[in-house]
Amino acid sequence: MALIVQKFGGTSVGSIDRIRNVAKRCIATQKAGNDVVVIVSAMSGETNRLLALAHEVTKVPEAREMDAIAATGEQVSAALTAMAIQNEGGRARSLLGHQVKILTDDAFTKARIKAIDGSKIFSTVQNGEIAVVAGFQGVDENGDITTLGRGGSDTSAVAVAAAIGADACEIFTDVDGVYTTDPNICPTARKIPKISYEEMLELASLGAKVLQIRSVEIAMKYGVPVHVRSSFSDAEGTWVKAEDKTLEDVVVAGVAYDKSEARVHLVGVADKPGVVAEIFSAIAEKNISVDMIIQNVSSSATGQADVTFTVAKTDLARGKPFIEETAKQVGASAVRYDEDIVKVSIVGLGMRSHAGVAAKMFRILAKENINIQAISTSEIKVSCLVAAKYTELAVRALHDGFGLDVPPKEG
Amino acid sequence: MALIVQKFGGTSVGSIDRIRNVAKRCIATQKAGNDVVVIVSAMSGETNRLLALAHEVTKVPEAREMDAIAATGEQVSAALTAMAIQNEGGRARSLLGHQVKILTDDAFTKARIKAIDGSKIFSTVQNGEIAVVAGFQGVDENGDITTLGRGGSDTSAVAVAAAIGADACEIFTDVDGVYTTDPNICPTARKIPKISYEEMLELASLGAKVLQIRSVEIAMKYGVPVHVRSSFSDAEGTWVKAEDKTLEDVVVAGVAYDKSEARVHLVGVADKPGVVAEIFSAIAEKNISVDMIIQNVSSSATGQADVTFTVAKTDLARGKPFIEETAKQVGASAVRYDEDIVKVSIVGLGMRSHAGVAAKMFRILAKENINIQAISTSEIKVSCLVAAKYTELAVRALHDGFGLDVPPKEG
Repeated sequence: MALIVQKFGGTSVGSIDRIRNVAKRCIATQKAGNDVVVIVSAMSGETNRLLALAHEVTKVPEAREMDAIAATGEQVSAALTAMAIQNEGGRARSLLGHQVKILTDDAFTKARIKAIDGSKIFSTVQNGEIAVVAGFQGVDENGDITTLGRGGSDTSAVAVAAAIGADACEIFTDVDGVYTTDPNICPTARKIPKISYEEMLELASLGAKVLQIRSVEIAMKYGVPVHVRSSFSDAEGTWVKAEDKTLEDVVVAGVAYDKSEARVHLVGVADKPGVVAEIFSAIAEKNISVDMIIQNVSSSATGQADVTFTVAKTDLARGKPFIEETAKQVGASAVRYDEDIVKVSIVGLGMRSHAGVAAKMFRILAKENINIQAISTSEIKVSCLVAAKYTELAVRALHDGFGLDVPPKEG
Repeated sequence: MALIVQKFGGTSVGSIDRIRNVAKRCIATQKAGNDVVVIVSAMSGETNRLLALAHEVTKVPEAREMDAIAATGEQVSAALTAMAIQNEGGRARSLLGHQVKILTDDAFTKARIKAIDGSKIFSTVQNGEIAVVAGFQGVDENGDITTLGRGGSDTSAVAVAAAIGADACEIFTDVDGVYTTDPNICPTARKIPKISYEEMLELASLGAKVLQIRSVEIAMKYGVPVHVRSSFSDAEGTWVKAEDKTLEDVVVAGVAYDKSEARVHLVGVADKPGVVAEIFSAIAEKNISVDMIIQNVSSSATGQADVTFTVAKTDLARGKPFIEETAKQVGASAVRYDEDIVKVSIVGLGMRSHAGVAAKMFRILAKENINIQAISTSEIKVSCLVAAKYTELAVRALHDGFGLDVPPKEG
């Protein structure tokens, strides 16, 4: 007998019929001999409807009140799911964030989980009931309702699984697993049967939207095995778990791309100690996060350098005044922006032990005449910034160039 | 400086524009030098939408889950109202049932308030903020969300006012006060400036839908002055408060009518001790509440009597099998039903000290050739059951016959 957490996203509970299917699946898992804890998101469209109501009242809704409104979406779907399970002959009990309780900090609309009390969940499942926990929400020390930010139900699910020591956390979604790259632009993309937390983390942060990055971090920290699978079939999906021997043969596990960033180019910055620190402290102070940073070699004649970095497109309009003020302070002669860019990345644990992976990536792109505008690397990832028009070409070339079109041999 | 509770019903918060008006009114009350606590219902239509969702899932939703869903209606309107106050430049904070906390028993969907902790409300208003409390909801000792039943926001408002010792509880509604009778059927109906709790209680229980009966009971018990007034104007409405000298001159304060009951007639019941008890215990066991009961004198020849009583029309279909079974057991020769009836009542504290009020009522009805099918009386009320077709005629005749068309002299 295992203790299983099952998480269903907004589309999986998007209608009463789908909620019925969720109920049947939960009951089947329980009947197979497991204790079952279900985490549900709001019905698809509901969170947007609630946010729109708030924005109709005021342009800048107070975050605390925003959370009180947004949390009702999951409250309704949790209770409906419990009712649906009861209607199918099962036993169930909805539990809200403050009932569980899922204690968070008080950073409304983007709260972080501090602790989860497993006792109400345990007493529910020990009583033979399926515990249906409202995702996305928690409660701070003051008793105020908080939410974890968009996609927070994944985080709720993995954190609950960690807190109660679940044997697995199943994330049901509208895709059937994690792919070697986006199947929409690369026909040879394959479903990955197993992937390490580290690789999933890089893929998630690079724009593969299957799992919230915070949920992967928590899964890794507590060693929760996560199973990403389709809510519309019984097929095995992708297991995200600690690295094991069989994974080591794979040099590159996946290719990701991310169009959400814009490039900022400060021309002719004084090349002296402390200038770069000054630029990025000023930007960080405004809560604008910077991803890639490249400083080219200064021309010794002028004593000036160019600094290039990327920021989220959604932060760009807000960030421009600060960036330009900072640019002026560090003596930049011009600021240029480019939103027509994409970051293409290869990710794989095997890079740690295989040399020349980055060089191979550059060769593959060069062969397609794709100019690389910037490069950044981590231990298990290489990212290249290229013009957005090359997105599909670059992804396909890298995917097949690293042999991802061929299934790996069974370990 | 006074402490004022203001309650706004579903139509008063039925749209974003109306919520803005509520916000302006609360701020104006605060600016006039008062501490303000606001109680809101769900936006009109919202509770029905939520109930419909639940009933789509299952025919008989579990009451606990039903409450978890229904309570979201007030959660949303409380947070929207707080936002609207902030948007108008005021300061506000929404408080849910479990945050206040409004402790109830665990009778889901019809919970009763056991205790209200005023501390969060006090700290909010002492902080210069308007406390916006979600009506209709509470929390039981287990932390489960409960609701107080339809119209429960009135109860929330008066109970909160009692708990915090408010100077007044203003009930904003879509009518501008309590009338001597229904203005829709009696053109001479007048708004009553002041009415006693006892009279309001009789009027509320007789179908004048302005105030929930439970809220009047609580107001009376704790001596909370209640001001029923229009959310669309600043005009004074009706004050419901302890009886005072000026009220004593009024023999009849109002005329009410109620079409919600059906008459049940058991023909030829054995006239011996215990039979009537048997009939009504059997019916009470099925949770069907009986209002008027009349047993006519038995014919000594047959030793049989007729028993007539009224039950809510909504209980009739469910109740018929039990009623007929019971009728058989007590030897009734037939059971007859009549749904085409109305209960017309006169209510007034002055009846206690004035004789002949009931007799005058019967004369007025007789003069209009209206046959009385049953009579029941209390200390401050006389009710007559008549054919439904006489509703308007009876109400108008009683209203003007008792001089309610003429405003009382100022005391």
